[in-house]
Amino acid sequence: MPTYTAPIKDMQFLLHDMLKINDSDVPGYDELDREFTAAVLEEAGKITSEVLAPLNQVGDVEGCRFENGVVSTPTGFKAAFDQVREGGWTGLDCDPEYGGQGMPYILATAVGEMFSASNQSFTMYQGLTHGAYSAIHAHGTDAQKARYLPKMVSCEWTGTMNLTEPNCGTDLGLMRTRAEPQDDGSYKITGTKIFISAGDHDLADNIIHLVLAKIPGGPKGIKGVSLFIVPKFLVNDDGSLGARNGVSVGNIEEKMGIHGNATCVMNYDGATGWLLGEQHKGMRAMFTMMNEARLGVGMQGLSQAEAAYQNALTYARERLQGRAVTGAQNPDGPADPIIVHPDIRRSLMDQKSFTEGARAFIFWGAEMIDRALRLQDQDAHGLISLLTPVIKGFLTDRGYDMTVQAQQIYGGHGYIEEQGMSQFTRDARIAMIYEGANGVQALDLVGRKLALDGGKHVMAFFDLVKGFIKENGDTEALKEDFLDPLKGASKDLQAAAMFFMAEGMKNPNAALAGSTDFMHLFGHVCLGLMWSMMAKTATEALAAGASDVTFYETKLATGRYYMARQLPATKMHLARIQSGADTVMALDAENF
Amino acid sequence: MPTYTAPIKDMQFLLHDMLKINDSDVPGYDELDREFTAAVLEEAGKITSEVLAPLNQVGDVEGCRFENGVVSTPTGFKAAFDQVREGGWTGLDCDPEYGGQGMPYILATAVGEMFSASNQSFTMYQGLTHGAYSAIHAHGTDAQKARYLPKMVSCEWTGTMNLTEPNCGTDLGLMRTRAEPQDDGSYKITGTKIFISAGDHDLADNIIHLVLAKIPGGPKGIKGVSLFIVPKFLVNDDGSLGARNGVSVGNIEEKMGIHGNATCVMNYDGATGWLLGEQHKGMRAMFTMMNEARLGVGMQGLSQAEAAYQNALTYARERLQGRAVTGAQNPDGPADPIIVHPDIRRSLMDQKSFTEGARAFIFWGAEMIDRALRLQDQDAHGLISLLTPVIKGFLTDRGYDMTVQAQQIYGGHGYIEEQGMSQFTRDARIAMIYEGANGVQALDLVGRKLALDGGKHVMAFFDLVKGFIKENGDTEALKEDFLDPLKGASKDLQAAAMFFMAEGMKNPNAALAGSTDFMHLFGHVCLGLMWSMMAKTATEALAAGASDVTFYETKLATGRYYMARQLPATKMHLARIQSGADTVMALDAENF
Repeated sequence: MPTYTAPIKDMQFLLHDMLKINDSDVPGYDELDREFTAAVLEEAGKITSEVLAPLNQVGDVEGCRFENGVVSTPTGFKAAFDQVREGGWTGLDCDPEYGGQGMPYILATAVGEMFSASNQSFTMYQGLTHGAYSAIHAHGTDAQKARYLPKMVSCEWTGTMNLTEPNCGTDLGLMRTRAEPQDDGSYKITGTKIFISAGDHDLADNIIHLVLAKIPGGPKGIKGVSLFIVPKFLVNDDGSLGARNGVSVGNIEEKMGIHGNATCVMNYDGATGWLLGEQHKGMRAMFTMMNEARLGVGMQGLSQAEAAYQNALTYARERLQGRAVTGAQNPDGPADPIIVHPDIRRSLMDQKSFTEGARAFIFWGAEMIDRALRLQDQDAHGLISLLTPVIKGFLTDRGYDMTVQAQQIYGGHGYIEEQGMSQFTRDARIAMIYEGANGVQALDLVGRKLALDGGKHVMAFFDLVKGFIKENGDTEALKEDFLDPLKGASKDLQAAAMFFMAEGMKNPNAALAGSTDFMHLFGHVCLGLMWSMMAKTATEALAAGASDVTFYETKLATGRYYMARQLPATKMHLARIQSGADTVMALDAENF
Repeated sequence: MPTYTAPIKDMQFLLHDMLKINDSDVPGYDELDREFTAAVLEEAGKITSEVLAPLNQVGDVEGCRFENGVVSTPTGFKAAFDQVREGGWTGLDCDPEYGGQGMPYILATAVGEMFSASNQSFTMYQGLTHGAYSAIHAHGTDAQKARYLPKMVSCEWTGTMNLTEPNCGTDLGLMRTRAEPQDDGSYKITGTKIFISAGDHDLADNIIHLVLAKIPGGPKGIKGVSLFIVPKFLVNDDGSLGARNGVSVGNIEEKMGIHGNATCVMNYDGATGWLLGEQHKGMRAMFTMMNEARLGVGMQGLSQAEAAYQNALTYARERLQGRAVTGAQNPDGPADPIIVHPDIRRSLMDQKSFTEGARAFIFWGAEMIDRALRLQDQDAHGLISLLTPVIKGFLTDRGYDMTVQAQQIYGGHGYIEEQGMSQFTRDARIAMIYEGANGVQALDLVGRKLALDGGKHVMAFFDLVKGFIKENGDTEALKEDFLDPLKGASKDLQAAAMFFMAEGMKNPNAALAGSTDFMHLFGHVCLGLMWSMMAKTATEALAAGASDVTFYETKLATGRYYMARQLPATKMHLARIQSGADTVMALDAENF
């Protein structure tokens, strides 16, 4: 069975060596000194490796059950959920007014990676709840907040997001679910929602569904969509649970992965709901959840890659096959461990350089979110908005590839379910699809975010890269291995953006045909920047006489690998982008 | 449920327009005129789309069962297997002396693609049998051939390959299964083999296992391995079945995919076996099966990509979401079909240009095999030996990626098992692993095949590309879109080979660290060559006034896409290769 060990040392390196969060001006970061974060991360590491990771395969094999209208989660999930809840892990960054611990988002991010890596299906129950909490916190009335949030912070009640219907996913304007206003100010919600993660289960006393629906007579299409709070059990004024609401589970889906999380068809039959936020402004409220969810899903790409990598590494050190081409490394054994073989190394280095780069990207992004939330820093808000589709799309595409590579290291054993490597790829696969399929992320990036505020945020990103290169250009240890390749990759990204501007004016297809390539190009430049920042940090630590020389030298070596072996992808993506839309759009639909 | 339609028109284009097989000097090709191949392909298309494809998902959902030591296949497999057998499909290219139809390999290849695309798990039962047939045909005594081959040609008896053991897969020198010589000339085989595809089932009266084992006292390692025929039921001299042999199924594996094929743990407990070929020359005999099997597995990469693409295309034409950015294409409907969106197009064109290019590559390779087999053409033999790891490794890596892209087109519906798109990716995944994991293919290519016969075969490949470019350099319609990019890509391949020669002398790791990239670079050049050849064929057909203008223009447009959008990958692979082994091998194993 696969195991999981929280990468605490790497996380501490990012938080304190690279980002130096404790010296930051972000309110709340003053509490986050090295000892405090170590204590939190160690506790989180314990519960995730000892409680959640051992349940990961159980969840995959057993799956959820749907009998007589009731959904049950796999053996052990309920006890573990109670333990997580009692440990206070569900409200780490929630508002203290509602029972949360008020910690910065960056700390919740580090903890969240561990939860997601150890058991993605399990963690989704609390993840969806957090999303619903955020939407109610941002858009609810005081009465709504008081009624729902305390129980959601503690996960005594969980939450869901209900967007998709059989006939619409990406294009929510086609929605059919309707909300009829009632005399008492409530609404009667009727319709069918599909693919509802954590839609029902036996982990909590109540489930607070957030449901998108149309109020009859409202504007057509996406502009007529409103958001509603629809609890599974109605909540009395004293907070006790009342009657069962008119919402039921039609079925649970058989899926490729995340078997431990119940993906439900939800039937709303005149269910009582209450408007959350304004009428017809449902998408705005829903986006509060969706942006957070997209960053969380991007993290799943990293998380599954990390968990798969850890196990592939162990296997590569233990499995004996063949001899090193440069001479036996394990002469007393029957063969050498496969980690001696260059192609196995290549694969492990792909994985290692991706996961560490992705972690830096996500932590760096988390600090930006804290700046936006806690300092109302509009530049930080703009930059993280621009990068959200990159974090979601690039990290889940690449994260999935890495789980496939990790599985490959096991050879035939990777294909056998008992070994658990297949589960990482099957679980990671969903992250490329949900919360907006990655093609939609690419569209959001190229069609919307690039030009947002007159292109201000993408210019800010380029300035950031240029500034970093200029500032560190005299550091010999960085120049050739890091800054030069970063400069080249960044130029490729600029050339692609220029191509979109020049050609996109004449033909919008020219930009959109290159959108997925642009998202990947952007992602590589971001990871190139992250590796350059980590290399600078490591170089400084070594110069300052850090005791753990091996750790910092390994960091530098891993970064050099990324710059030499992964960053050349930018040239390929640019060439594809610059080939334009002609070959992409050449065929009539019937001639395929 | 997914459907499958045999791509007969495309196959006929390759056989008769591009390869012009009927004009060839290969013995047997004179029979293969347009009408004859059409008749065979149409019949094969019928049985695969009407009988095998509908059983594909049944096989996935039900899987095989193992009860009381007996393996049963999914509902309908037995009846379909009988139908396939009675139709004469199992012996298409087998020796007429043993009941085969003696058709060229190229025709069996075209039919084989359909079988594999419609139901990979099912087709493996006959595929493994064919491999065992080939090994006995090449290395068996006349008595062995007479005893086993007629029943194997008809698949009344099936066959298996037994290589892997719990402690060894790639490194067969570590093998523990032993074969003790008996006085009557037979051997007693004892040991455990794992991952034995089609190892047991209820489709045939007998199963002829080919088993690698060591004769005590023989040479150490791989040089002491011999191959044995070990039937499930002993065969009497009159051909009737005798006693059950000492071979049994220990278990069947729970796998990520190919659930319809039983992957068995086989226990040999003093089972009676007979030497096939010479003592200690087992690997040579096994390679007869393995090369054929590797080409067959390469075809699985194409097959699953083709089946997945067909369904993704249908979905993209029917699913309505959003509007074309250049204006509504389906103004009377609630939304446009998603095929209007550039990023969906990009994905479909990736798939289409891959599958058609891969099919050309495989058919072209099949002709080379026929030349080697039927004309004893040593150059053809050398070239196909060189390209076998490219066909296996590149086509299964890329084929898998294409199934992932096809699944992605379905959005959330692609993750639901009921839709069947997940099965294509899960089934395609094994092809990257079995018959030598793709990293081993890359090692075979770079470590062995490149330098074979003094590098003669890779030089022949370069000459072929150069010759084609030179010969067609005056054709304006080909130059810019096809020949120039092909020339560039081929130069990248030469540069990579030169790098290996120069650096590999000093440090073998420098070549091996780039082996997977080289395999992909080589694959892209091969598909670039195929697309150039197809474009030449299509251009000529149009110039000659062919009636089906749309077909040939579509072929040209699809080729232009591949050259513009896929071939730029060669630059990335070359850059990675030229970065050498330093960053790959930098870390000590304990510092990962």
